[in-house]
Amino acid sequence: MSTQNVLLVLDLLGIFAFALDGALTAIRTARVDIVGVMALGVVTAIGGGVIRDVLLGETPATFQDWRYLTTALAGGTLAFFLSRRLTHLAKPILLFDAAGLSLFAVIGATKALAFGFGPLQAVLLGVLSAVGGGTIRDVLLNRVPTVLSANSHLYAIPAMLAAGIVVLADLVGFSAGWIAVVGALVCFTLRTLALRYRWNAPNPPGAPPL
Amino acid sequence: MSTQNVLLVLDLLGIFAFALDGALTAIRTARVDIVGVMALGVVTAIGGGVIRDVLLGETPATFQDWRYLTTALAGGTLAFFLSRRLTHLAKPILLFDAAGLSLFAVIGATKALAFGFGPLQAVLLGVLSAVGGGTIRDVLLNRVPTVLSANSHLYAIPAMLAAGIVVLADLVGFSAGWIAVVGALVCFTLRTLALRYRWNAPNPPGAPPL
Amino acid sequence: MSTQNVLLVLDLLGIFAFALDGALTAIRTARVDIVGVMALGVVTAIGGGVIRDVLLGETPATFQDWRYLTTALAGGTLAFFLSRRLTHLAKPILLFDAAGLSLFAVIGATKALAFGFGPLQAVLLGVLSAVGGGTIRDVLLNRVPTVLSANSHLYAIPAMLAAGIVVLADLVGFSAGWIAVVGALVCFTLRTLALRYRWNAPNPPGAPPL
Repeated sequence: MSTQNVLLVLDLLGIFAFALDGALTAIRTARVDIVGVMALGVVTAIGGGVIRDVLLGETPATFQDWRYLTTALAGGTLAFFLSRRLTHLAKPILLFDAAGLSLFAVIGATKALAFGFGPLQAVLLGVLSAVGGGTIRDVLLNRVPTVLSANSHLYAIPAMLAAGIVVLADLVGFSAGWIAVVGALVCFTLRTLALRYRWNAPNPPGAPPL
Repeated sequence: MSTQNVLLVLDLLGIFAFALDGALTAIRTARVDIVGVMALGVVTAIGGGVIRDVLLGETPATFQDWRYLTTALAGGTLAFFLSRRLTHLAKPILLFDAAGLSLFAVIGATKALAFGFGPLQAVLLGVLSAVGGGTIRDVLLNRVPTVLSANSHLYAIPAMLAAGIVVLADLVGFSAGWIAVVGALVCFTLRTLALRYRWNAPNPPGAPPL
Repeated sequence: MSTQNVLLVLDLLGIFAFALDGALTAIRTARVDIVGVMALGVVTAIGGGVIRDVLLGETPATFQDWRYLTTALAGGTLAFFLSRRLTHLAKPILLFDAAGLSLFAVIGATKALAFGFGPLQAVLLGVLSAVGGGTIRDVLLNRVPTVLSANSHLYAIPAMLAAGIVVLADLVGFSAGWIAVVGALVCFTLRTLALRYRWNAPNPPGAPPL
């Protein structure tokens, strides 16, 4: 598969995972109807990519290619009909979220490099793409976003690492699609380990213990 | 009137309605001063259009033409001085909101088609334009946005229908300004009927009854 | 110093002040880890400028020049390590916020004029740049934004005044960098006086007393 195709597949997988994540989170934490479920699924799924593309100065991918929106709607629809089984399963939501996080981090960084952004900016854009959808989800549901919480289990750090791997690989001359796959896997592994073993980043020195 | 002028008038009407809606909602639900009233009026009024134009990749209409901002400020000012009379009237707020929703849905879809977006994307952009201002309003007031609520009385569905009418009319070759008027009227009628008879969209199968 | 350099220095000072403001606010009002502190610092610092540049239709300054992001990260880092001393000091946060507000108001208005925006639009863009970072900060922390509060001590009004000074000076033919300095000083002075003497803008006529 060409690099272009690898990135498209990763992007659509990320959108599907975030759509499931957003739609199931809506069902679990708010009183929503089918419109709310679909809306939160779609917004979580396309939010990070829209932020990324607006910051890159191009028309968001969702509006250029029907496959993005269709994938997001498919994820939302699946979540709606599976909600009876999945409502009480918090773990799949976290895994879908980790998948979206990993995939969007590497795609955001890759796209930023392709647009000629510097290394620091490419990492920032990767992280913003990765945490953007979930942050919009939490803001709309009136919750403090995961990325800000002291109990976030390293949410942004694996995304930063994944984006950093892509940027470093580019700096030393690699830029193949499989680097993005490696970065995403590292991010996903670190995030799920942090969830499993309740790892957290250091708290501010003055903060009271959790 | 030319199609261009019909759309401008609809846009300004939508902005005025949303400015009244946002400013009165601010007065009713939060402790705001005149700045807060004007700010929430302006942001509700121009929010959907700014989202629409940023996603279309052009400078938001508000920054190109002084009439948009002036209209929004007029709506906010009117709300401020009428607040003694209107504060307890929840119904006008809902009607202004329905008017803004209807007008922004058809304008968003029309503009998206003019920019060459596909049908599915044009409907999405119409809906985002329509619900964007109110969603920003609710996020700033720290409330779960209407569009996500299980008790939303079809908020996004009429907007989707209005945008869909514009897109379908365009697909079969119509694109006159009056199609936008028809779409907006259908949206407004369905929304007010849904409010009057408390219609709601289906809830997720696993959700407890309201 | 050239006008260009004056504006760059003011911009970096604004970013540093807002980064301290956002990071310290995160430490004071939420349970955040180092990632949350840095994230809220960076988002508060670059939020207003990103809104400004997206509305102007250009790639946000943060992504073009590494100094912006580095300055924001330095502010966040300083806040993290000083948090033990600064946590209980609400006053410095308000002063940093006032500095960011003042600097972003004049830069936003100056940039809008340079892009050919009209006077009314330039004032709006100045105000949006000024209050944007703090508003994103408050939305992420699940609070009603300062700019909307009845007890905001004129938050947006000094910003409007500063932007208005820049726009008026431009209308009468001045456009030197020192006008921006004057505007920022006027804004900062008015804001700190309003905080000191608890000045507030008028409330809506129908609103109950505070």
